[in-house]
Amino acid sequence: MKPAVGLSASDAAAGVAEGAFTAEQLVAVCLDRADETEPEIQAWAHLDREQALKQARALDAHKQRGSPLGPLHGVPVAIKDIIDTAGMPTENGTPVDAGRRPRKDAAIVRRLRRAGAVILGKSVTTELAYFHPGKTRNPHNPEHTPGGSSSGSAAAVAAGVVPLAIGSQTNGSMIRPAAFCGVVGFKPGFGAIPRTGVMAAAPSLDQLGIFGRSVADVALTAETVIGADDEDAASAGQSAGGLYAVATSAPPVRPAIAFVKTPAWDRAEPATRAAFEELRTAIGEVDEVPLPEVFDGVLDVHRVVMAVEMAKSLGGYVDKAPEHISDAFKGLVAEGRAVSAYDYLAARDWQSILSSGLDAIFDRYDAILTPSAPGEAPKGLESTGDPCFCTLWTFCGTPAINLPLMTGKGGLPLGAQLVGRKGDDARLLRTARWLADHIDDAVEGDDT
Amino acid sequence: MKPAVGLSASDAAAGVAEGAFTAEQLVAVCLDRADETEPEIQAWAHLDREQALKQARALDAHKQRGSPLGPLHGVPVAIKDIIDTAGMPTENGTPVDAGRRPRKDAAIVRRLRRAGAVILGKSVTTELAYFHPGKTRNPHNPEHTPGGSSSGSAAAVAAGVVPLAIGSQTNGSMIRPAAFCGVVGFKPGFGAIPRTGVMAAAPSLDQLGIFGRSVADVALTAETVIGADDEDAASAGQSAGGLYAVATSAPPVRPAIAFVKTPAWDRAEPATRAAFEELRTAIGEVDEVPLPEVFDGVLDVHRVVMAVEMAKSLGGYVDKAPEHISDAFKGLVAEGRAVSAYDYLAARDWQSILSSGLDAIFDRYDAILTPSAPGEAPKGLESTGDPCFCTLWTFCGTPAINLPLMTGKGGLPLGAQLVGRKGDDARLLRTARWLADHIDDAVEGDDT
Repeated sequence: MKPAVGLSASDAAAGVAEGAFTAEQLVAVCLDRADETEPEIQAWAHLDREQALKQARALDAHKQRGSPLGPLHGVPVAIKDIIDTAGMPTENGTPVDAGRRPRKDAAIVRRLRRAGAVILGKSVTTELAYFHPGKTRNPHNPEHTPGGSSSGSAAAVAAGVVPLAIGSQTNGSMIRPAAFCGVVGFKPGFGAIPRTGVMAAAPSLDQLGIFGRSVADVALTAETVIGADDEDAASAGQSAGGLYAVATSAPPVRPAIAFVKTPAWDRAEPATRAAFEELRTAIGEVDEVPLPEVFDGVLDVHRVVMAVEMAKSLGGYVDKAPEHISDAFKGLVAEGRAVSAYDYLAARDWQSILSSGLDAIFDRYDAILTPSAPGEAPKGLESTGDPCFCTLWTFCGTPAINLPLMTGKGGLPLGAQLVGRKGDDARLLRTARWLADHIDDAVEGDDT
Repeated sequence: MKPAVGLSASDAAAGVAEGAFTAEQLVAVCLDRADETEPEIQAWAHLDREQALKQARALDAHKQRGSPLGPLHGVPVAIKDIIDTAGMPTENGTPVDAGRRPRKDAAIVRRLRRAGAVILGKSVTTELAYFHPGKTRNPHNPEHTPGGSSSGSAAAVAAGVVPLAIGSQTNGSMIRPAAFCGVVGFKPGFGAIPRTGVMAAAPSLDQLGIFGRSVADVALTAETVIGADDEDAASAGQSAGGLYAVATSAPPVRPAIAFVKTPAWDRAEPATRAAFEELRTAIGEVDEVPLPEVFDGVLDVHRVVMAVEMAKSLGGYVDKAPEHISDAFKGLVAEGRAVSAYDYLAARDWQSILSSGLDAIFDRYDAILTPSAPGEAPKGLESTGDPCFCTLWTFCGTPAINLPLMTGKGGLPLGAQLVGRKGDDARLLRTARWLADHIDDAVEGDDT
C-alpha cells in the first residue's frame, strides 16, 4: 500500500507502526509531492532527496530490529531555516549565512528525531525571520503571500508535502501564515518549547510552534517537544506531561469562549468582521469581552521590545554585510539602536501588566476567540501581511492556535485564532479540538 | 535566668524552647542593649519597645499553649528599612517616604514570623540602598563608617543588640558592612530569597541576605527564608531543603579553596594583601587562581546594569522631590537614563558569560577566597566605603559570605569573603564553617 498525499501525522505514524507502509515509502510520497508543488510554491530552502530517504531507511531498519517506536516514527517534518540542524544547512533567510552548517541540532530537532521524525528538509523563512519576504508563494493562489516569517513551513503543510512543520513567532510569524495557508498552527506559551539552537531574534518574545493538519496532530507533536532545556532559561519548569491526553479528551463541560476584538480590530476587513459574526452565531453562546484601555498601546510597546532585541541580536548582519540586508531590516535595527534602556525596560514592564489583565478573562473563560489576521492572504509577494492580530498574544506569551475554520470572499482561507491562559496549553488544545468538531457539525461545507 | 547580651540565634532559640528564659525576657535584654548602644551607634530607623515586647508575649503565650515552635521561636531580628513590614514604617532611607506604612509583610518577613522570629524593628539603610550614608556608625569605632547600604543591620548585630538581621546587596551592601562591622554576612545566590515586598533597586542584581554571629546561625535562618515565591520570578525553582543539615555537617573531604584576587586587587590596601598571605598560610593548600582577562570589565558592566535599573526603579524619587535626594543619587539616575537599550543588553549578557567563566573554577574548588573589602572600615561617615570586592559576585549571582576572621592594623575587623557556586549555597556554608573552625584551631587570638 502506498501512503496517500495529505495524510495526517497520526495516520502516518500509525501506518508506519502497523506496517501498512514503510517510512521510506512515506517519505518518497512526500518527496514526489514536493517535486510536483515546489516549482510553484517554493517552500524549501534545503531539500535533499537522498538525505531524507536515508533517515527513513534507518528508521525502517530500527523498526525491523523490533526496537520501540517513538510517537512520530517515520513522520516527515519540515524545519524553518532559522532552526539549527546537524548535517543540513541553516541559512536564516539571508545570503550572509549562505553555506552555514551548524554542528548541532537545535533542542526541538533533537527531540523530534528522538520521537522518530524524519527531518525532511529546511523550509523557507523571511530574511532573519523579519518582514522581508522569501521566495515562497501561497499554495491556494501563488499570486498571494503565504504570510511570514514561517512562510515555507506553513506552505509545505498546506501543499500536502509534509503533515508537520516547525516555525517560530516573534510577532505574528506562526498564526498569520497558518491562517493565510489554511492549516492548523499552534504556538505554545512562551518558554514551553526551548529555543536552544534557534536563531535568537527577540529573546523576550521568540516562541516556537507547530504547523499541522489537525489539532490532534499538533498536540501529539507538542507533547514530544515541550519541556525544559538547561540552555534556555525561559523554558525552566516547563513540562508536557499529559498534554496529548488532555488535548484529545472531551471537555468535562461545554467550554466558555470569549470573543475579543483586541486593539487591532479597526484593521479587520469588513468581510472578516462579518465572518466572525457568523462564526459566533454558529458556535453559540460566545460573549464579547472588551479589553480595558490599558491594552491600547500594546502594538507600540511590542514594537519597542522587538526592535531593541532584534537590533541587539541581529544588528551585526547590518554592520557586516549591509549590501545583503533589506532596507526594512536596516530600518528596524536603526530604530532599535536608538531606544534608551529606560524606554526598553518600561516597555518590558507591560508584558506582566497586560498578562495580569488577561488572567481576569481566563478566570472566566477557557479560551479567547479572535481573528488570526485582518483578512485573507493579501495579493502580492512583496509583503507577508499584517501581524497585528497576533501581537498581543505573543507579547503576553499566551498559547495560541489558528484554526482554518472559514473561507474568505476571495476563496482563500480565513483563520480563527483561539488563545489560552499561559501555562494551560493542554486546555487550549482541548477547547480548540472541541470547537473544530462543533463547527464541523454546525456549519455546512468543507472549511474545517 | 536572664539571657545574655550577644547570644547566638541558635542559643537564643534553644533557651526559649527549653524554658531557660522567655521570649519576652530575651527581647527585653535586646531592647536594653539597644538603649545602651543606640546613642552612639544609631542603627535603628524604627524601634518601638512595646511593639516588640507584644510580639514576644504572643510567642510566649503560643509556647504555653503547647503549640509547636518554629526554629527561630522568640529570636529577635532587625529588618533593613527597604523591606516591607506590616504595622511598622518602611521608609527606604529617604525623607520622601517618611511615614510610609506598607499594608503587607515582605515574603522574607512573613517567613521569619512563621519561623517564630520577633521583628524587633527596622534598621537603617543608606538613601534608597545606594551610597549616600544614613546616621549609623561603626560599633568598633564610631568615627568610622559601618559600611552600607545595610548599615544598621550589620551594626545592630555587631553591637550585640540582635543575633540576626536582614539586609540586601545590589553591589556590596551585605558583605562590605559585615566585614567593616566584624560579623558574619551571608548573601545566598541570586533568586534564593524572594524579593517580594522589598524595594526594587536593580532587579537583575538585588539579592537579600542575613547577618549573624556564626555560620550556623545564618544557615539556620537561610533555611527558613530561602525558597520560591510566585511574585518574584527570579526565585522560581528555589528551595532550601536540607540546607541547614548540609551546612552544619563536616565536609566529607578537606575542602579545596581557590584564592582569587579579582580585578579589584589593585585597590586592596597593603595591609590587606599581607593579611591574606598570612591567612592562606594559616589555612594551608590554597591555590591562587587567576581570572581570565574577560573579567577585567566587570566593574563597568555592573555599573551600567545598576545605573539603568536603579534609574528605572527609583528615578521617580528624583523627579518628585529633587530637594530631598542626594547629588550622588541624582547623578546615578542621570547616568542610568542616558544609557541605550543596546548597551544595557550588552552589559546584561556579561552576567551569563562571566558566570560560565566562574563555573570552570567551581568544577575544581569548593569555594573562592577573596577579600570582602579593600581594608578596614575607612574613617569618616561621609562615605560607606568601596564595594569593589563584592561587585563580581553580585553580578554573577553567586552565594557569598563574609567571615570576620582577622583584625586590621587599625584594630578594626578585616573580613575574608568566601564565594560558592550558584545553586550550591549549602556547600558554601559548609566550607565556611569548616574554614572558621580550621582557622580557630590554627591561629592564636580571638579574631574568629
